[in-house]
Amino acid sequence: MAEYKANLVHLLQSVKHDSGKSYTQIAEETGLTNVYVAQLLRRQAQLKPETAPKLQASLPDLTQDLIHHMMKPPMRSYDPNLIQEPTVYRLNEAIMHFGESIKEIINEEFGDGIMSAIDFYCSVDKVKGVDGKDRVVVTMDGKYLPYTEQKLEDMASKSRTS
Amino acid sequence: MAEYKANLVHLLQSVKHDSGKSYTQIAEETGLTNVYVAQLLRRQAQLKPETAPKLQASLPDLTQDLIHHMMKPPMRSYDPNLIQEPTVYRLNEAIMHFGESIKEIINEEFGDGIMSAIDFYCSVDKVKGVDGKDRVVVTMDGKYLPYTEQKLEDMASKSRTS
Amino acid sequence: MAEYKANLVHLLQSVKHDSGKSYTQIAEETGLTNVYVAQLLRRQAQLKPETAPKLQASLPDLTQDLIHHMMKPPMRSYDPNLIQEPTVYRLNEAIMHFGESIKEIINEEFGDGIMSAIDFYCSVDKVKGVDGKDRVVVTMDGKYLPYTEQKLEDMASKSRTS
Amino acid sequence: MAEYKANLVHLLQSVKHDSGKSYTQIAEETGLTNVYVAQLLRRQAQLKPETAPKLQASLPDLTQDLIHHMMKPPMRSYDPNLIQEPTVYRLNEAIMHFGESIKEIINEEFGDGIMSAIDFYCSVDKVKGVDGKDRVVVTMDGKYLPYTEQKLEDMASKSRTS
Amino acid sequence: MAEYKANLVHLLQSVKHDSGKSYTQIAEETGLTNVYVAQLLRRQAQLKPETAPKLQASLPDLTQDLIHHMMKPPMRSYDPNLIQEPTVYRLNEAIMHFGESIKEIINEEFGDGIMSAIDFYCSVDKVKGVDGKDRVVVTMDGKYLPYTEQKLEDMASKSRTS
Amino acid sequence: MAEYKANLVHLLQSVKHDSGKSYTQIAEETGLTNVYVAQLLRRQAQLKPETAPKLQASLPDLTQDLIHHMMKPPMRSYDPNLIQEPTVYRLNEAIMHFGESIKEIINEEFGDGIMSAIDFYCSVDKVKGVDGKDRVVVTMDGKYLPYTEQKLEDMASKSRTS
Amino acid sequence: MAEYKANLVHLLQSVKHDSGKSYTQIAEETGLTNVYVAQLLRRQAQLKPETAPKLQASLPDLTQDLIHHMMKPPMRSYDPNLIQEPTVYRLNEAIMHFGESIKEIINEEFGDGIMSAIDFYCSVDKVKGVDGKDRVVVTMDGKYLPYTEQKLEDMASKSRTS
Amino acid sequence: MAEYKANLVHLLQSVKHDSGKSYTQIAEETGLTNVYVAQLLRRQAQLKPETAPKLQASLPDLTQDLIHHMMKPPMRSYDPNLIQEPTVYRLNEAIMHFGESIKEIINEEFGDGIMSAIDFYCSVDKVKGVDGKDRVVVTMDGKYLPYTEQKLEDMASKSRTS
Amino acid sequence: MAEYKANLVHLLQSVKHDSGKSYTQIAEETGLTNVYVAQLLRRQAQLKPETAPKLQASLPDLTQDLIHHMMKPPMRSYDPNLIQEPTVYRLNEAIMHFGESIKEIINEEFGDGIMSAIDFYCSVDKVKGVDGKDRVVVTMDGKYLPYTEQKLEDMASKSRTS
Amino acid sequence: MAEYKANLVHLLQSVKHDSGKSYTQIAEETGLTNVYVAQLLRRQAQLKPETAPKLQASLPDLTQDLIHHMMKPPMRSYDPNLIQEPTVYRLNEAIMHFGESIKEIINEEFGDGIMSAIDFYCSVDKVKGVDGKDRVVVTMDGKYLPYTEQKLEDMASKSRTS
Repeated sequence: MAEYKANLVHLLQSVKHDSGKSYTQIAEETGLTNVYVAQLLRRQAQLKPETAPKLQASLPDLTQDLIHHMMKPPMRSYDPNLIQEPTVYRLNEAIMHFGESIKEIINEEFGDGIMSAIDFYCSVDKVKGVDGKDRVVVTMDGKYLPYTEQKLEDMASKSRTS
Repeated sequence: MAEYKANLVHLLQSVKHDSGKSYTQIAEETGLTNVYVAQLLRRQAQLKPETAPKLQASLPDLTQDLIHHMMKPPMRSYDPNLIQEPTVYRLNEAIMHFGESIKEIINEEFGDGIMSAIDFYCSVDKVKGVDGKDRVVVTMDGKYLPYTEQKLEDMASKSRTS
Repeated sequence: MAEYKANLVHLLQSVKHDSGKSYTQIAEETGLTNVYVAQLLRRQAQLKPETAPKLQASLPDLTQDLIHHMMKPPMRSYDPNLIQEPTVYRLNEAIMHFGESIKEIINEEFGDGIMSAIDFYCSVDKVKGVDGKDRVVVTMDGKYLPYTEQKLEDMASKSRTS
Repeated sequence: MAEYKANLVHLLQSVKHDSGKSYTQIAEETGLTNVYVAQLLRRQAQLKPETAPKLQASLPDLTQDLIHHMMKPPMRSYDPNLIQEPTVYRLNEAIMHFGESIKEIINEEFGDGIMSAIDFYCSVDKVKGVDGKDRVVVTMDGKYLPYTEQKLEDMASKSRTS
Repeated sequence: MAEYKANLVHLLQSVKHDSGKSYTQIAEETGLTNVYVAQLLRRQAQLKPETAPKLQASLPDLTQDLIHHMMKPPMRSYDPNLIQEPTVYRLNEAIMHFGESIKEIINEEFGDGIMSAIDFYCSVDKVKGVDGKDRVVVTMDGKYLPYTEQKLEDMASKSRTS
Repeated sequence: MAEYKANLVHLLQSVKHDSGKSYTQIAEETGLTNVYVAQLLRRQAQLKPETAPKLQASLPDLTQDLIHHMMKPPMRSYDPNLIQEPTVYRLNEAIMHFGESIKEIINEEFGDGIMSAIDFYCSVDKVKGVDGKDRVVVTMDGKYLPYTEQKLEDMASKSRTS
Repeated sequence: MAEYKANLVHLLQSVKHDSGKSYTQIAEETGLTNVYVAQLLRRQAQLKPETAPKLQASLPDLTQDLIHHMMKPPMRSYDPNLIQEPTVYRLNEAIMHFGESIKEIINEEFGDGIMSAIDFYCSVDKVKGVDGKDRVVVTMDGKYLPYTEQKLEDMASKSRTS
Repeated sequence: MAEYKANLVHLLQSVKHDSGKSYTQIAEETGLTNVYVAQLLRRQAQLKPETAPKLQASLPDLTQDLIHHMMKPPMRSYDPNLIQEPTVYRLNEAIMHFGESIKEIINEEFGDGIMSAIDFYCSVDKVKGVDGKDRVVVTMDGKYLPYTEQKLEDMASKSRTS
Repeated sequence: MAEYKANLVHLLQSVKHDSGKSYTQIAEETGLTNVYVAQLLRRQAQLKPETAPKLQASLPDLTQDLIHHMMKPPMRSYDPNLIQEPTVYRLNEAIMHFGESIKEIINEEFGDGIMSAIDFYCSVDKVKGVDGKDRVVVTMDGKYLPYTEQKLEDMASKSRTS
Repeated sequence: MAEYKANLVHLLQSVKHDSGKSYTQIAEETGLTNVYVAQLLRRQAQLKPETAPKLQASLPDLTQDLIHHMMKPPMRSYDPNLIQEPTVYRLNEAIMHFGESIKEIINEEFGDGIMSAIDFYCSVDKVKGVDGKDRVVVTMDGKYLPYTEQKLEDMASKSRTS
């Protein structure tokens, strides 16, 4: 399965490489975030029917067969050694060192709940800092999900059984 | 922080113990699932305002101070060694051995998404098997969350910035 | 051994894919739970003699050779990285965060024992929540197994030796 | 919780120590296996009502309060560093090196199932080898549990819901 | 050292709690990001001299002694079990699943370099989604750091030695 | 090396499979324990010269070449993921939860020493329980090895050097 | 991806090997540090346009195709087992045992910040010790990066959004 | 238990410290290896009855109570972080890097068996190298234990049962 | 033991703190490297007799008792979580990513051997980069240790035994 | 790289196997320790120029090409699963359980330093115990390396820079 996914990603990356376009360019042409485009081309997200033609317009070498495979729900995964990669490590470092603070601010501003990683958007942007130097901005935007109070009467699966 | 939580749980468990009631009895008296009651008394869930009086009615020894602490968003956690406990291990074993199957059935029946563990209900029930013997039924009932297609126009945080 | 199993699963999945049927459809045609069907087609469960013809009726492309292999006791296993998959993680998260509560409720309602993961049923269902939205229901139904009190006179292997 | 258990075990071990009796002697006086007696006195097993008087007869210093605590379902656990202890390591080594063989013999002799660790007896015996030297015999005797075929009609929790 | 830090954080959190202010309110009063305020009050960041009076104005119960300790470079750390906390896990999940994509986009848009986690800003914001529901936005904004080409003539420490 | 062993085991298992005999049948024909036969055919034990003809009589398809390889001291090993297999896990669970008890009983009954895992026998038997149901009995029988008191005069390697 | 990198490194190492030159010789010919040359030839660093001709002059067998691949931002990685290698272990040992001291000296001499591993030079030199024996000198020279105080007005990504 | 052992070791080390004697001196006075003396005073070995008076003669401050505790079978253990200690790491490094060679030489010189770590002597000696410099010699001297061929007729625990 | 060391370090750090001196200042006054001074005051190195008076001159509040304890060989150790600290992580990152290159350069320049971490010097320096910005320079300077060819005639411990 | 080493070792082992000689015989013919010979033939040590002819005399099938590769500094490594092998485990067990004692005896007899694993000899010998039984003696003989006091004036790399 993993091998099958790796082969597919290899093909998708070749199509992108030959197009000479960046993820951000494809994102602009398809109306998606740049991170999402990259996820699509690494088989970490499902290509939706209405977006398939836009992606094919942006990457004309995408065959119908590749499009077909991209439209299946993917098996999301990553190589655990990816944590060695300096960019990924620093993002992880920030999350772990700031994690408790982020959690507490969500509690204060929203209540007892979390940020969804499923109803979720992510983009990478380039801005100028106050010193005029380039800065990377990673925006993580997820739906607030409050923890449900587990009332028996609201538990559909159980009320069904009574 | 961990110590503070442990002390609070100790007090809550004493109140329950002295009441002589089981989690399931308190669940019936408060209209919650039995697992959720247990979570409340282990500070793994937040006591909601409208439920606080019901819980206090069921456990009259709960002081206002304890109620007050139970109403804060908790720091959810567990002892990693809990995996040694045979009941917990077997549940984990089932999840890991059946996990890929469950994932694929969700994909077939719902689409590319997951079962939420936040908008989520859990209960433990006792039923008779076809052989007349007792069986434990753990029901996990979570909202289906489809993965969002990350369209730039729908990314509120970004459209705000343009 | 692992490679042999992977190849067999690949063949079984192809048969299912070509049939165009979902796990739930095959489950309905064979009288099994949908999770169990998926386990059979991933070689995580043994195909029983009386069920083999039903499965072959449901999936006519299953060859006798494949049926033959499916009837052997399997080597149950999983890829440890499966924990990365968001659906599997959330199930695991629920088990670990709720584990102590589930254990205590079993103790209160049944006694000192556990839920078997061997004499065990699992199914995935789709229900509507009180908000009319789809919900995933994972039901885990296992025989209650009380811990044996180890009386010497009841220990067959020892009394044999005296 | 862990601390509470450790204190209780300390008290139980003191009672045993002061009695001057070995686990095997107490086992003979109570009709239990020697391993089970040791488990009881380390709070790894529940003392059953009919056995409590026998244990108290064997260990008269056991107070009613201790007996009372011993009758609750315990939180089973172990220190992961126990694997360093040479006796425990060698048992573990045997299980891991022989594990696949034991599994296959169970499959051949019993079918697709496992040895229960819950409906389970364990004892340590002393025998003479053919060379006249002492040998340790650890007997592990568990009920054979066949994997259930998950037929929907036999899944009590589900048929209930239809 | 860890204990000393824990005690200090306990005192700082008490001051904040008694003030009745949220991290975001203190952030507005001091001109800092809300995440940074939380880091200051958890001793994960150094209080700068020009900011100390502003913080003390916002939290008048902060003693000079506490201020004094907050101005030392902290030992940054976190409890590894924090990864269990659902909010922190989901952030980590996003980083690991999207990590390679983020890395490649940085390479395409900026060159061979990384996002600094030191010259770095982080904030948590609340926005409305296109469905009118609350969304959590975590912004991570770090300086782009290009990998240096290690020319001997530019290596100050070495040219010093020649 | 690992690959070479895997290939050899594959050949040995084919010979056994084609013979239609179980490990227990071969054990009866060769006078070995069933677990040891399985170990031999998985290259986890060395075939001894006097036993080679018996094994070849029991499994006539064993070539001289295979016999030759089986007579070398093997590299004993196992796949760490074997711990996932439910039978192996439960044996391991028993060892870890009962380990300290077993150790203490050995100390009481034998002295300060351990059970050897080298001068060691293991068998799997099938018995009827008091309820008439099948039970699996795993017997682990190892020589008692007392810890040596390290007297200098008894340390052959050192006295040699004086 | 990993395989692709491994193949490329194999080719680069062959070119170097056939040249008969050491990393230090190539470093002298190209004006780079010896460690950086080794990183380039193991695809752990990006070859810059102005340096490419110098490297090709030093290693004439480098094809245009290889040069082309060396100019892409690499996926930095390492085999975790590298920690077994005695030279690498000792460097790691020094870092871990001296780490807290190095951190505190940086705080005292520079302030609250770190040594960059991105704007970073590394070289290996050979010097004579006071005893006339050879010594290895590893110089790690990184830009001092002060932790930013996260003032909202300086957070470019946020001020953009207001 | 661990705490109890730590306290006992603290007392034993104080007695040794106050005596002003080294492990090697005590070894010479008691006829034991120096490593074994150190193990005794760290409660990693059992003091034997005939040696107790010799040890007390060597360390007169050893009370009867301490002697009494030293004569119990110890719970052998170590702090896993001990691997950080440079001396211990280097010994471990040698074992792991040379391990397969040592195993194969034992096979060639002795047969299919191992070196016992129970019937085992260990000493640390000081010798002069050919360059006149001090060298540390760690001698590990263990009984050769051949793997038993598991013949059913020699399995005392089983023949007993027939 | 660990606690004893922690207390001692706490006292030593207090003496330093009260002196108002930095590690580098004490290094200049004592002729040691700044890292070594920090190691001494964290009990990671042994204070040598001829240096004790110099250190006491630099830190007059060091009592004779503290000096006495500093002169014992320390138990070198570190908290494994130290790897979370950003400065320490980046040093470790450099070692792991550059490790194979450093190893190969040592082989090319010196032969088959390593850099000692025992006959080893480490210092932290502050230099100006070509851009005029501060840079941290960590110098690791260790004796080259060639791997010995293990000739039997040169093995002092063995020739002794013949 | 790892694959290349594995292939080379396979060839070297074939040459040895075909010679019919044991490591100890080759050791006697070449004047090396038996462990070192095994290390050479597993590419864990560098073959020195003056020893190459002796080894070739002992193993005439060694080609010039193999000799050539054996003379390069090897990448020392081991399979982490080797710890499962019973002989290797027991050596490791001894090191970990005795480690602190060995460390303290080195401190007492030599001072604050360690045993080198680089200037190091290892041999496996066969001796008779006082009971006439075979014993395995593993001798580890390493140069004593005292920790350097890091005096700035003795730090060659630094004095160079002043």
